[in-house]
Amino acid sequence: MSDNWSGEAHVQGLLAFEAALARAEARAEARAGIIPAAAAEAIGCACQVADFDVPALFREAAVAGTPAIPLMRMPTERVAEDGCGYVHWGAISQDAIDTSLVLQMHGGLDFLTEGLRSIGEACATLAERHRDTPIAGRTLLQQALPIPFGLKAARWLALITRQLARMREARARVSVVQLGGAAGTLASLGAVGPRVTEMLAEELGLAVPDLPWHAERDRVAEVAAALGVVAGAMAKIAGDLVLLAQTEVDEASEAAAQGKGISSALPQKRYPVDATLVRASARLALGVVPLLLAAMELEHERAAGAWQMEWEALPALFGYTAGAVARDALAGLDVVAVRMRANLNLTRGAILAEALSMALAAKVGQQAAQEVVRKLTERAMREDIPLLRAAEQDERTRAVLSSEALVRLFDSQEYFGSAGIFIDRALAEFRALAA
Amino acid sequence: MSDNWSGEAHVQGLLAFEAALARAEARAEARAGIIPAAAAEAIGCACQVADFDVPALFREAAVAGTPAIPLMRMPTERVAEDGCGYVHWGAISQDAIDTSLVLQMHGGLDFLTEGLRSIGEACATLAERHRDTPIAGRTLLQQALPIPFGLKAARWLALITRQLARMREARARVSVVQLGGAAGTLASLGAVGPRVTEMLAEELGLAVPDLPWHAERDRVAEVAAALGVVAGAMAKIAGDLVLLAQTEVDEASEAAAQGKGISSALPQKRYPVDATLVRASARLALGVVPLLLAAMELEHERAAGAWQMEWEALPALFGYTAGAVARDALAGLDVVAVRMRANLNLTRGAILAEALSMALAAKVGQQAAQEVVRKLTERAMREDIPLLRAAEQDERTRAVLSSEALVRLFDSQEYFGSAGIFIDRALAEFRALAA
Amino acid sequence: MSDNWSGEAHVQGLLAFEAALARAEARAEARAGIIPAAAAEAIGCACQVADFDVPALFREAAVAGTPAIPLMRMPTERVAEDGCGYVHWGAISQDAIDTSLVLQMHGGLDFLTEGLRSIGEACATLAERHRDTPIAGRTLLQQALPIPFGLKAARWLALITRQLARMREARARVSVVQLGGAAGTLASLGAVGPRVTEMLAEELGLAVPDLPWHAERDRVAEVAAALGVVAGAMAKIAGDLVLLAQTEVDEASEAAAQGKGISSALPQKRYPVDATLVRASARLALGVVPLLLAAMELEHERAAGAWQMEWEALPALFGYTAGAVARDALAGLDVVAVRMRANLNLTRGAILAEALSMALAAKVGQQAAQEVVRKLTERAMREDIPLLRAAEQDERTRAVLSSEALVRLFDSQEYFGSAGIFIDRALAEFRALAA
Amino acid sequence: MSDNWSGEAHVQGLLAFEAALARAEARAEARAGIIPAAAAEAIGCACQVADFDVPALFREAAVAGTPAIPLMRMPTERVAEDGCGYVHWGAISQDAIDTSLVLQMHGGLDFLTEGLRSIGEACATLAERHRDTPIAGRTLLQQALPIPFGLKAARWLALITRQLARMREARARVSVVQLGGAAGTLASLGAVGPRVTEMLAEELGLAVPDLPWHAERDRVAEVAAALGVVAGAMAKIAGDLVLLAQTEVDEASEAAAQGKGISSALPQKRYPVDATLVRASARLALGVVPLLLAAMELEHERAAGAWQMEWEALPALFGYTAGAVARDALAGLDVVAVRMRANLNLTRGAILAEALSMALAAKVGQQAAQEVVRKLTERAMREDIPLLRAAEQDERTRAVLSSEALVRLFDSQEYFGSAGIFIDRALAEFRALAA
Repeated sequence: MSDNWSGEAHVQGLLAFEAALARAEARAEARAGIIPAAAAEAIGCACQVADFDVPALFREAAVAGTPAIPLMRMPTERVAEDGCGYVHWGAISQDAIDTSLVLQMHGGLDFLTEGLRSIGEACATLAERHRDTPIAGRTLLQQALPIPFGLKAARWLALITRQLARMREARARVSVVQLGGAAGTLASLGAVGPRVTEMLAEELGLAVPDLPWHAERDRVAEVAAALGVVAGAMAKIAGDLVLLAQTEVDEASEAAAQGKGISSALPQKRYPVDATLVRASARLALGVVPLLLAAMELEHERAAGAWQMEWEALPALFGYTAGAVARDALAGLDVVAVRMRANLNLTRGAILAEALSMALAAKVGQQAAQEVVRKLTERAMREDIPLLRAAEQDERTRAVLSSEALVRLFDSQEYFGSAGIFIDRALAEFRALAA
Repeated sequence: MSDNWSGEAHVQGLLAFEAALARAEARAEARAGIIPAAAAEAIGCACQVADFDVPALFREAAVAGTPAIPLMRMPTERVAEDGCGYVHWGAISQDAIDTSLVLQMHGGLDFLTEGLRSIGEACATLAERHRDTPIAGRTLLQQALPIPFGLKAARWLALITRQLARMREARARVSVVQLGGAAGTLASLGAVGPRVTEMLAEELGLAVPDLPWHAERDRVAEVAAALGVVAGAMAKIAGDLVLLAQTEVDEASEAAAQGKGISSALPQKRYPVDATLVRASARLALGVVPLLLAAMELEHERAAGAWQMEWEALPALFGYTAGAVARDALAGLDVVAVRMRANLNLTRGAILAEALSMALAAKVGQQAAQEVVRKLTERAMREDIPLLRAAEQDERTRAVLSSEALVRLFDSQEYFGSAGIFIDRALAEFRALAA
Repeated sequence: MSDNWSGEAHVQGLLAFEAALARAEARAEARAGIIPAAAAEAIGCACQVADFDVPALFREAAVAGTPAIPLMRMPTERVAEDGCGYVHWGAISQDAIDTSLVLQMHGGLDFLTEGLRSIGEACATLAERHRDTPIAGRTLLQQALPIPFGLKAARWLALITRQLARMREARARVSVVQLGGAAGTLASLGAVGPRVTEMLAEELGLAVPDLPWHAERDRVAEVAAALGVVAGAMAKIAGDLVLLAQTEVDEASEAAAQGKGISSALPQKRYPVDATLVRASARLALGVVPLLLAAMELEHERAAGAWQMEWEALPALFGYTAGAVARDALAGLDVVAVRMRANLNLTRGAILAEALSMALAAKVGQQAAQEVVRKLTERAMREDIPLLRAAEQDERTRAVLSSEALVRLFDSQEYFGSAGIFIDRALAEFRALAA
Repeated sequence: MSDNWSGEAHVQGLLAFEAALARAEARAEARAGIIPAAAAEAIGCACQVADFDVPALFREAAVAGTPAIPLMRMPTERVAEDGCGYVHWGAISQDAIDTSLVLQMHGGLDFLTEGLRSIGEACATLAERHRDTPIAGRTLLQQALPIPFGLKAARWLALITRQLARMREARARVSVVQLGGAAGTLASLGAVGPRVTEMLAEELGLAVPDLPWHAERDRVAEVAAALGVVAGAMAKIAGDLVLLAQTEVDEASEAAAQGKGISSALPQKRYPVDATLVRASARLALGVVPLLLAAMELEHERAAGAWQMEWEALPALFGYTAGAVARDALAGLDVVAVRMRANLNLTRGAILAEALSMALAAKVGQQAAQEVVRKLTERAMREDIPLLRAAEQDERTRAVLSSEALVRLFDSQEYFGSAGIFIDRALAEFRALAA
C-alpha cells in the first residue's frame, strides 16, 4: 500500500493522465484529432516516471503550491519538437491530480479487497471448524447464553462480506475521470470537450462522470467513509480477540511467532500484538475520515485548503486502513475450546437460566416462569450450588419438567437455536461474493 | 424531524415491534403459532403509545440502563389475561430498541429525501434560468474564467441528485429487522426463529438481514456516513452562497423576510442567515459521524457504551442534518446578474486570458501562446488597460488573430465550452431520479 | 446541568449583561455616566427573565438568525420612559451572547468541579481502604504483576485531581467579559469604551480580556478541550470498571439499586449500568470537542456559521460531560477482594516471575536471571506446577536463594514496591486541592 | 520538525533514557548505587544512536509489537562485560518509550514556539504600521464598520501571544519522566524507586510526576489539545488572508516568489499558496487531536491499542502543526491600503450608519436615532446616493447635527473607538512574553 501512495505513484498517475489525454485529443474527432497523432505519440513516449526526478519535483511543488505545475513543465521539456506544444492541452492541474488520485484509489481499494478476502477466509475456516464449540455469549461483558464460537466467527465473516461489497461499490463510484479545464466548463476544448472526456476515460479504463467534480467531492468523501467502515469492522474483530486473550478468559490467542508479543521482564505473557496494532491502525484511519467529509465544504470552483488537504489525507487514510487489514490476527488463531467450556461453567449453570425459563414458560406462562427462575438463580448463587440442582429441588419446576428434561436443558450443546443456520448463511454469502 | 426522534416516537417503535412480534409468533407455524392468536390480538390492542406515560418510562430507563426493560413491563401490565404471558416472547431488549431505531431511521431518511428534493428543485430552477448568465468561475477564490451561473447551480443540482440516490440506498441497507434473542442465536424460539424473523419483517415492512446484527453495526455506521455526506453537500452550497453575498461581491442574496438577517445597529446589512445556520447545522452533524463509525468497535455480543451512545447520537445526527436540509437558502435567491457582470470586468479582460491563449495556441503552439499572453497580461495590468487593447496593439497577436476575432474572444458569452451540455445533463438526471 | 444550559438560563445571562452594561455605563465616568443613572435603574428592573416569554423569543430568533436581536427589543419595550432609549447602548448582539455564554460556562464548570470532587472522594476512600488489597496489574489485558487495588484507585484519584486543577484554570481563562461593539473597536462608546468594559466586568464578576475576542475563539476552544480531557478521564475509570465487572474477572461490581442493570430474560446478570452510560456520555462529549477547535477558523470579525454553531455545541458538550461526571459508578462499589486474590493465582505464581528475576539478577546478573526465569516459567506452565515449585527444584536458583527467600518472594504482599508512597501522594494532592 | 520525529530521534530518546537510568541507578543511594558506577559508564558509552541500525530495529519492532524490546537488546549486546547485566535495570519498555516521547514533545514544542514567535513578529509589524489604515470590519462577511487594519493584525497578534503562553504551559505540564516498572509500582527497584525517579528526572532535565502515568494519558491529551488550538489559530489567520486576497476584495496578497502560486493557463492569477497550505495543514492537525483525547480511555495498566496509536499520532500531529506554523503567509504581506479604502466606499457611507446613529442617539435617544438612520440608509440605497447626502437633506438630522459634524462623522479615520488602545495592549503583551 505504501508503494501505491508514494510520490512516484502519484507522478506515474499524472503522467498516465497526460499521455492518455494526448491520445484522446488525437482521436477525438472523426476526421482529425484536435492535436496531431504524432504529438500524442511523442507525449506518450515522454511520460515515463523513471525519467523524472520525483523528489526534485515535489520540492518545486512545495513552492508552487501544487505538484502539477512543475510536473507539467517537465514532460514538455522532454517531448520532441512536434509534440511539446501539445502537452496538457486544454487541461488544468486539478484534472491531472484528481485523475491520478482516482487511479491510486483504485489500486488502494484492490489492496484492501485482497486483504479483506484473506481475513474472510480465516473467519470462514473458524466458522466451519467451531460450528459446535460452545463459548459464552457476552453482553456488556457479562455472560448471557452459550453460543457456538463458530457463530461469532460467522458474524465477523458476514461483516467482512459486507465490506467486500462496499469496496466493490466504492470502486465503481469513484472510478471516474476528471476533466473540466480551468473552471469546469472545458471551454479550452471548444465543442469537442465531452468527446475528449469519453476518449480519455476509455484510455484510462475509467467511467465518464455526470459533470466535472472538481468542487463537489462527495465521491471522495464516500470512499473515505467506506474505508472508515472497514476500519471499524477490523477494530470490532481485533477488540473481540483482545478480550478473548485476557489472562482470566484465555479462550484464544494469536499465532505465536519468533520475537512476537513477548516481554523480557515478564516471561509468562504473550501479548495479542496483531490485534493491538490493528486497533491502533483502525483508530488512526477513523481520525482521517471526518476531514474528508468536512472537505466537501469548499469555495466555489476550487478549494483554498480543503482540496490540498486531500493530497495528504488520502494516502494517510489508505495507509492506516491497510495497516488494519494487512495484519491478520485471525490466521493461525489458537482457539482454546477447553477454556471456553470451563468459563461456561463459572456461573454453575446460571448462563442457561433462559433455557430453563423458556421451558417453564411453555407450561406456566412467561411471567410465572421468569419469577421462578429468578428465585432459583438467586438461591443457586446464594448457596453456591448449580442451577440444575436448585431446579431439581424445586417443586414448581419438578411439577412440569422431568429430571431428564432438566439435564438436557443444561447441556449447552442443545441450546444453540438458529446458530447453525446463521453460520451457513454467512458462509454461503461470503463464498458467493468471493467467487 | 424532532417529532420523528422524540421519546414518544421511540416508544411507538418499541410497541410496534412488540405487536408485530406477537402477530409473527402467532402466525409462524403452519398449523399453530408459538403463541396463541388471541394473545397476539390482546398485545396488539395494548401497544398504543398514547396509553403510556413516556416521561415516566424514560425516568425508569435512566436507572435500568435501557429503555426497553421498563417499557416491556408496561404492556405486560396492560394486556388482558390471555395475552400477558406472551409479550416480548423470546425477544430481548436490544431486538426491540434496534428495530425501533430502524423504523425511526426510515422516517428520518424520508424527511431528508423530501428536503433534498425541494432544494434540488430550487437548483434546477436556477440552472435553467441562468444558463447564459455569466459569473466569474473562481479557484482558490481568484477569478479564473467566466462560467454561466447556471452551471454553478447545475453542479449543486448534480450534488443533490447524488445525495438523493444515496438516501435511497441507505434506506434499503438499513431497513432490516433485528431479532436475535439474548445472544444472537434465537435459541429462545427453538427451530422456528428464522420463520418468526421473516414474519416479523413482513409485519413491519422491513427486510430480513443476513444475520442478527446486534454487535456488527456497519449498517448504522453507513447511514451515519451517508448523512455526513449530505451535511457536507449542504455546507458546500451554503458556503458558496455566503461568499456570493459578501458586500464586495454582492452577486446573490437570500430572499428577504420580516425580521430576518437584520442588524439593529447596522441597518445597511442583510445577513445570509439561512446559509449561515445551514453551515452551523452541517458542522454539528459532521461531529456525530465519527462517533457512529467508532461505535463499530464494541465488545462481543453487546457493547458496554458504544451501543447506548447510539441512542443519543442518532437523534442528534438526524436532527442536525435536518437542520442543514430544512433551511432552503436557495428558494427565492436574489440573483444580481448585473453585479456578476460587473465583477467579471474587474480584471479588465484578464479573466479571458485563457481564451486568448488557446486561440493563439492553435496558430503558434501552446508554449509560445502562453508566453505571449503572459506578457500581454502583465503589460495590461501594469498599464491598467484592457487585455483586449494590449492584444490589439501586439504584433505577434495581430499577425494571427483579426480584430473581429479578438473582440469575439473577449465576449464571455462565447467562452462557456460545454457548460450547456453539463447543465442539461444535471437537469435530466435530477428529473429522472425525482420522477 | 440541563438547567444551566436551558433557554431560560441563556436569556437570563443576556439580561444580566444588559442590566450590568447599563449600570456600567451609568458609572463609567467620574462626574457623569454616559447614560443616566435613572435609566440604568429602570433597565435593571426590567431585566427579569421571569417576565419574558422565552419560547416566543427563540421562535423569533430562528428567523432573525440570532437570539439577541428579538431579545433586545423586549427589554426596550418593558423599560419605563426614562430608560428605554438606553438599553443595549453601544453594544452589539454578540457582546450579550458571548458574555451570557461565559456566565453559563462558569456555572457549568462549577457543576463539573462538584461532580469531580465527589468522584475524587470515592477514589480516595478506595485508595485508603485497599492500600494492601492485591489485584493483578494488567498490561494489554495480560496479567503483569500484583499491585494493590488501592494504587489503581490512587491513579484514578490523581487523574481526578489533575482535572480539578484544569477546571480551575479553564474557569479563570474563560471568565472574561465580551464588549467590542459592532466590529470590535468599541467605537460606539467613544473614548470611554475601556472604562465601560472594566465597570461591566466588575458588575458581572468577570475579568477584562486583553482584547475583544469575538473573532478569536481560542478561549472557548480551550474550555472545550478541557472538558474533552475530563470526559476522557471519566471514560478511563468507567472502562476499567466494566473490565473488572466481567463475569470471568468479577473483581468489582457497581452498587446495586432497585431495577438497575437487570435483565428480564437473564436473571443471573447485573450489568455495570453506570459505567456503561458514563462511557456513552464521554464519547458523545468527545464528539463535540473537534467542532469547537475547528470553529476557531472563522471569517474576519464574526463567523458565518462557526460561531452560531457554538450555541448548540456548548450546551451539548457541557451536558454530555455532565452525564459522564454525574453518574458515580464508584460510589458504593462492591470490591470483591477474594476474587482479586483468586485471579492472581490463575497463573500459579508466574505473575511474580519478575520478583524472582530481580532477586536472581542481584546475584547472577540481569541477563542470566532472565534466562533462568524464562526457562522456569516455561517448565511451570508446561507441567502445570506452581512457579515456586519449579524454582525450588532448580539448582541454579537454590544455589543463590534460600527456600524462605523464595516463599517470601511469592507472597504478593511483599512485592508492591513504591505503591504505598504513590497512594499517599495521590491522597495528599487531592486533599490539598479539594481543601 | 521531521527530524525531531524521525525513527533516529525516537531511538536517540530511548538511548538517552537508558543511559540516564543507569547513571541514576548508580547514584541513587548515598553510599552505593543499586548498580555499579562502572556499569553506568559502560552503558552511557554504548548508547550512541549512530551505532545502531535504526531501520533494522523498526523492522524487528513491527513483529515484537513495540520498538523498545529489540532496542533494549542491542545496547545490552554492545555494553562491555561489566555493564551488560545492568542495562534497562528495573525499567519496562513503556518507561523508555514514554520518556523518549516526552523528550521529542519538548523539541517539538520548542520548534512551534519559535515559529509562533516569528509569526508574532510579522503581526506586530503589521499592527504598528497599519495603526491608521482603515479597512472594512466584516461580520458574516458583510461590511459592518471601518476598523484599522492594524487592529486586525493586533487581534492575530494577541491570538499568537496566547498560543505562546499555551506552549510554555504545555511544555511544563508534559515535561515529566516516566518510570513505573512493569505495572506502575516500581517494585523492581525495591525501596529506592522514588529516589531513582528523582535522579533520572534530574539527568534528563525533566520533572518528577505525581505518579507514574503509563495508563493516565491526560498530559498527552492536553498537549494534543494545545496543538489543536495552535492549528486553529493558524487557520483563523490564514482564512482571513485567503478572503482578503479574493479578486473582488484584493486588499492583501502574499509576498511573491519565483514559481509561487502561478497558473500556467491563467497568467492573471496569483494564488495565496501559503495561506492555502496552512489551512490544509491545520485541518490535518485537527484530525489527530480527537484521537489523542479518545486514547485516554485505555485498559487497566497499559492499553491494547490506544497507547500504540500514540506512536503514529504524535509525530503526525506535531508534523502537521509545524506545517501550519512554518509557512509564514504574513511575512512580506503585500497590503493594498488603496483597495481597503476603495472597498470602504462601496456602500457609499452606509458602513458609517452606526456613527450617525450614535451621534443622533445622544440627542434624540437610541430608538428614535436608529429609526431615522434606518430610513436614511434605505433612501440612500434606493436612490443610490451617499448616506451623508441623505443625512444632510434630512430635517430631523439637520436639527441636531451641523453640516461639519456630519462631514466629520463620515471620515472613517475618526471612528476607530478604542482600536489604538487595543493595538498597544496587544503589542505590549507580545513584547512582554517574547522577551
